[in-house]
Amino acid sequence: MKIWQVAQEWSIGGMRLNEAEQPTAGVGQVVVRMQAASLNYRDLLTVKGTGGKFDLPLIPFSDGAGEIVALGEGVSRVSIGDRVCPMFFPGWLDGRPTASNRRLALGGTHPGVLQEFLLVDAEAVSLIPAHLDVREASTLPCAALTAWRALYEEAKIRPGDTVLVQGTGGVSLFALQMAKLAGAGVIVTSSSDDKLERAKELGADHTINYIATPEWGKAAAKWAGTGVDHIIEVGGKETFQQSIEAAGVDGNILVIGMLSGFDQRIFIPSLYSKNLHVIGLSVGNRRMFERMSAAVGRNRLKPVIDRTFSFDEVPDALDLMERGQHFGKIIVEFPKPT
Amino acid sequence: MKIWQVAQEWSIGGMRLNEAEQPTAGVGQVVVRMQAASLNYRDLLTVKGTGGKFDLPLIPFSDGAGEIVALGEGVSRVSIGDRVCPMFFPGWLDGRPTASNRRLALGGTHPGVLQEFLLVDAEAVSLIPAHLDVREASTLPCAALTAWRALYEEAKIRPGDTVLVQGTGGVSLFALQMAKLAGAGVIVTSSSDDKLERAKELGADHTINYIATPEWGKAAAKWAGTGVDHIIEVGGKETFQQSIEAAGVDGNILVIGMLSGFDQRIFIPSLYSKNLHVIGLSVGNRRMFERMSAAVGRNRLKPVIDRTFSFDEVPDALDLMERGQHFGKIIVEFPKPT
Amino acid sequence: MKIWQVAQEWSIGGMRLNEAEQPTAGVGQVVVRMQAASLNYRDLLTVKGTGGKFDLPLIPFSDGAGEIVALGEGVSRVSIGDRVCPMFFPGWLDGRPTASNRRLALGGTHPGVLQEFLLVDAEAVSLIPAHLDVREASTLPCAALTAWRALYEEAKIRPGDTVLVQGTGGVSLFALQMAKLAGAGVIVTSSSDDKLERAKELGADHTINYIATPEWGKAAAKWAGTGVDHIIEVGGKETFQQSIEAAGVDGNILVIGMLSGFDQRIFIPSLYSKNLHVIGLSVGNRRMFERMSAAVGRNRLKPVIDRTFSFDEVPDALDLMERGQHFGKIIVEFPKPT
Amino acid sequence: MKIWQVAQEWSIGGMRLNEAEQPTAGVGQVVVRMQAASLNYRDLLTVKGTGGKFDLPLIPFSDGAGEIVALGEGVSRVSIGDRVCPMFFPGWLDGRPTASNRRLALGGTHPGVLQEFLLVDAEAVSLIPAHLDVREASTLPCAALTAWRALYEEAKIRPGDTVLVQGTGGVSLFALQMAKLAGAGVIVTSSSDDKLERAKELGADHTINYIATPEWGKAAAKWAGTGVDHIIEVGGKETFQQSIEAAGVDGNILVIGMLSGFDQRIFIPSLYSKNLHVIGLSVGNRRMFERMSAAVGRNRLKPVIDRTFSFDEVPDALDLMERGQHFGKIIVEFPKPT
Repeated sequence: MKIWQVAQEWSIGGMRLNEAEQPTAGVGQVVVRMQAASLNYRDLLTVKGTGGKFDLPLIPFSDGAGEIVALGEGVSRVSIGDRVCPMFFPGWLDGRPTASNRRLALGGTHPGVLQEFLLVDAEAVSLIPAHLDVREASTLPCAALTAWRALYEEAKIRPGDTVLVQGTGGVSLFALQMAKLAGAGVIVTSSSDDKLERAKELGADHTINYIATPEWGKAAAKWAGTGVDHIIEVGGKETFQQSIEAAGVDGNILVIGMLSGFDQRIFIPSLYSKNLHVIGLSVGNRRMFERMSAAVGRNRLKPVIDRTFSFDEVPDALDLMERGQHFGKIIVEFPKPT
Repeated sequence: MKIWQVAQEWSIGGMRLNEAEQPTAGVGQVVVRMQAASLNYRDLLTVKGTGGKFDLPLIPFSDGAGEIVALGEGVSRVSIGDRVCPMFFPGWLDGRPTASNRRLALGGTHPGVLQEFLLVDAEAVSLIPAHLDVREASTLPCAALTAWRALYEEAKIRPGDTVLVQGTGGVSLFALQMAKLAGAGVIVTSSSDDKLERAKELGADHTINYIATPEWGKAAAKWAGTGVDHIIEVGGKETFQQSIEAAGVDGNILVIGMLSGFDQRIFIPSLYSKNLHVIGLSVGNRRMFERMSAAVGRNRLKPVIDRTFSFDEVPDALDLMERGQHFGKIIVEFPKPT
Repeated sequence: MKIWQVAQEWSIGGMRLNEAEQPTAGVGQVVVRMQAASLNYRDLLTVKGTGGKFDLPLIPFSDGAGEIVALGEGVSRVSIGDRVCPMFFPGWLDGRPTASNRRLALGGTHPGVLQEFLLVDAEAVSLIPAHLDVREASTLPCAALTAWRALYEEAKIRPGDTVLVQGTGGVSLFALQMAKLAGAGVIVTSSSDDKLERAKELGADHTINYIATPEWGKAAAKWAGTGVDHIIEVGGKETFQQSIEAAGVDGNILVIGMLSGFDQRIFIPSLYSKNLHVIGLSVGNRRMFERMSAAVGRNRLKPVIDRTFSFDEVPDALDLMERGQHFGKIIVEFPKPT
Repeated sequence: MKIWQVAQEWSIGGMRLNEAEQPTAGVGQVVVRMQAASLNYRDLLTVKGTGGKFDLPLIPFSDGAGEIVALGEGVSRVSIGDRVCPMFFPGWLDGRPTASNRRLALGGTHPGVLQEFLLVDAEAVSLIPAHLDVREASTLPCAALTAWRALYEEAKIRPGDTVLVQGTGGVSLFALQMAKLAGAGVIVTSSSDDKLERAKELGADHTINYIATPEWGKAAAKWAGTGVDHIIEVGGKETFQQSIEAAGVDGNILVIGMLSGFDQRIFIPSLYSKNLHVIGLSVGNRRMFERMSAAVGRNRLKPVIDRTFSFDEVPDALDLMERGQHFGKIIVEFPKPT
């Protein structure tokens, strides 16, 4: 089978399309024939060697969707032909995060999805909502689940709450769409009026161009009335202090870490005088994925897709991610079986 | 001013339209010129003397809406002309319920809203969502708040959850509408196919006629997949055991007590084998009302109104409630000021 | 190896001490050499055939402790020589209960601990607190964990709260001891003044003999001030209504189901007028066990043991359980390896 | 009556002991004859003009205890002779914090307790636990309540959890004592071995001298096993990064803001890679105070007092606070009535 690897150097150019032996399902394992993958900013960082320390060669990418083609001994929770997503953290099935249940992550400490046949624990896959095709479903494991967890597992938003979403990256667009599922009022920030216009089409109630309004925190607080209830902080430079300005008393700032590793100054008194909750998180567990799937399925939520590349074009997909001009997810389609 | 009282005997026929002196706002109080009231089943029980022990004469009804016309000394949180609802429990402003914060209830232990000018603590009113007229707003304090509290303050429902609503009474219709605000899947039961049809128009995803399907618990569990997540139990006869059948493992049964005082047999092992949560509740506090108003306002939710009576026709309104053939709230409009 | 089985008929007398082949650890499994087991009332019901429908022969008992003697392929979370308890629900490692994670239970739908060498998934064991010997540790998986979950995972008690514990059975004594860990005020009920005296020695702040005071609910509410905060309801006959009387507004009634399957009448209005939470539960998951172990270990809590039987005397141990005169856990010690 | 005011300049030397007219209780108010007050670091900042912007003259200090000597019209929740503490936030009785319920604070936006007769809303006082004298009780409203809220209302600690307490200031000592109420394992840091020794006498399980061990975060994480569960962050310089090091995955860092207003650098990725919760808070509401009082009373917790000054010596008490060599609360006793 074909696999993509970061082979000998950490760069997009260092990626190689190699051959590997097709895996066999051991006790409690399944083989998934991958049909689509989607990119996250974290994958770009991994390929460039700045997203963590791993050994070469490495099969990157965490997010994908495919079909079960083989079951190991003792496997009964899925069947041949089931359409599934492999879970980002294959060892984190339920409950709160721990050091051990988050140790393995696809496309990092565990081989990623850029392989035609993926071997994973049978426990580490989850069924795809029926109304989504595999390209759409491939966007769910990391970006969508991070947004879901932030809003519904950590902040526990309710109808009528206000939510601020920074930018229009993968997590942010899902957070916008998912916050609208619960009838929240959503503010989106961006440097691009065009992207803000598209955010409105997806349901944004209010938009702020942060170039035109650098003090967007105060502007957001004012629109929300007595400050914003929940802020999706994606960790851009100098955004944190604006988030604190935007937040209302007892508000939540959900720190989603995928964009980059900024070292920010935080004025501590604002944390306690406003009684803020700053909650760091990344991705979620299988149970959260199941709840998210139920919500996505029941409300027929459609992920926003920017462009689809063929399996051969993975480096082009990474180039597009690096240029940062996309709106919605970047997809890679696997070759159809012959 | 004019007021309605249960005068000398506990019955609809015992109600009298009397004159009373218009109140003056003391320190920390306001006077609200009432413009509309709405009926709850509890009001019928109170008038008939079966809803609690009170002294005669009693001014009944808890739910209404009107306009602030006088402010007592030291009042700054509302202004003359503000459109407000008086709170069901004027002493319960925030936090969990206690014996003391629930001691006073409008139309029971505190004079009710069937008076042209209502004297209440300034803390005990809340602003009306802008898109509602006073007739619509008059439905919020008891029925709507009970539904809101059940779903969002106690059960904390999320998009994709399943909710079962028993019947089409006031709380049940609000629960249906509010559960849809969060993208839940909603089942409604009724003995009337016509009412089920109207529930579907309001968003119900699935309906069950409990005459045709007496074992509706199992049917609901099956539709939901692995049992229903949240059940609005309004306390009809023999419903509780069906609710237990309907519920999934770790499910919530929210016992809303307004319909009647049934003594039911409960098979205890089903509570623990399914790990169920049976949560009793009635109405809520001002803070919950504010959160509900934000949700109702942002999503422009419209209460369902069956019929509006004039102030003179209060006994007719109670008769309609007693016959039980209505669908949606029964409203009383106050005389316009001359 | 030796095993105890309910062989051909459901009764204490139907138990047989048989020989079986010593198990080998498969992929992801371990073998535990059992050193002690403890009895729960549920085990008596199982042996007598009234605790569920199972096929004969069945190896009963869920609670035990022992030492890891063999590791299957790929096992790294435990080591040879580790002192462990097997988990009551081997498939429920973390998170909220579901139908699937509670499907397998030791001594019921999964072979129990009355075998010299127990084969279980490596994920389904947990380390024993260092200060406990194996006899003491053998009491933790079911009774202690049920009490812990009720108090700290469901009711989330705090110092200063009041807790009522019904009787002096296994779960109740653990609930008493564990509630004292958090500085709660604890009431214990019993029909025996002698047992109440011993409960006081274990820390009970107040005791009620329910023969002398059949209306113990009101008495408990009065002692607590404004009603009891949390009630451990073990499901004896006619206890539920007294629990409702005892509970304060917003109180929790934790329905622990092991004693028996009573069908009780519940007066529904008391549920909603007091805003009670009735929470059914049985046992818990591995993560809860780990948290409990940390609490037991740090505070050097010692389980109360009534009497220890040898492995040959299992039927005598069941007889003692049936007579119901014990105070504290009944233990079975396994033969020492030769 | 006598009162202390910051009169014409913001400094300890600018404080004046003045005469004022004794207040009369209006509708819904009470007069408390103050018997003791206690100091918080925030009071020193206020007196020096660095704790917020207020108008001169200002009566400082938030914490005190005394006896009800007069009831205004309509007051029934307290009686003449009741021993009470006035609440830090007189407008925050229950529920989550909001901008409005935290607007008034004693010794800041509301006149403080350094007056022989204090006029407050009857709702804004709470009874004192019976085992405490007024000097001890005077320490509860700010420091003790902040510690209680951090541990039991926000972090919701359980027996067996680990808690790290920075230093031995007022909040920190209460946090140490209160965490021990729930059987937690407590680490205390300080620059003084002598103070660490005294912390051990109060129950600390482990101590770290942060001069000797500047990388105390790692040391604390190691002692706790897999990182500390809950950290009381009092906001000293450069402490925040150490707190992040100390915390385990899914840990809580409770930012208590009273010491000073530091501007700290925070490395954002550590927030999300560890899934930390940073929770800002200051003081709490009356309901939390009541729960704390129940816990303090039931467990006969005794506040640690360093030294008691007479009412004339308030500036000396502030000098002692400024030197920072005390261990435990600094108290001011009011003159006995003649």
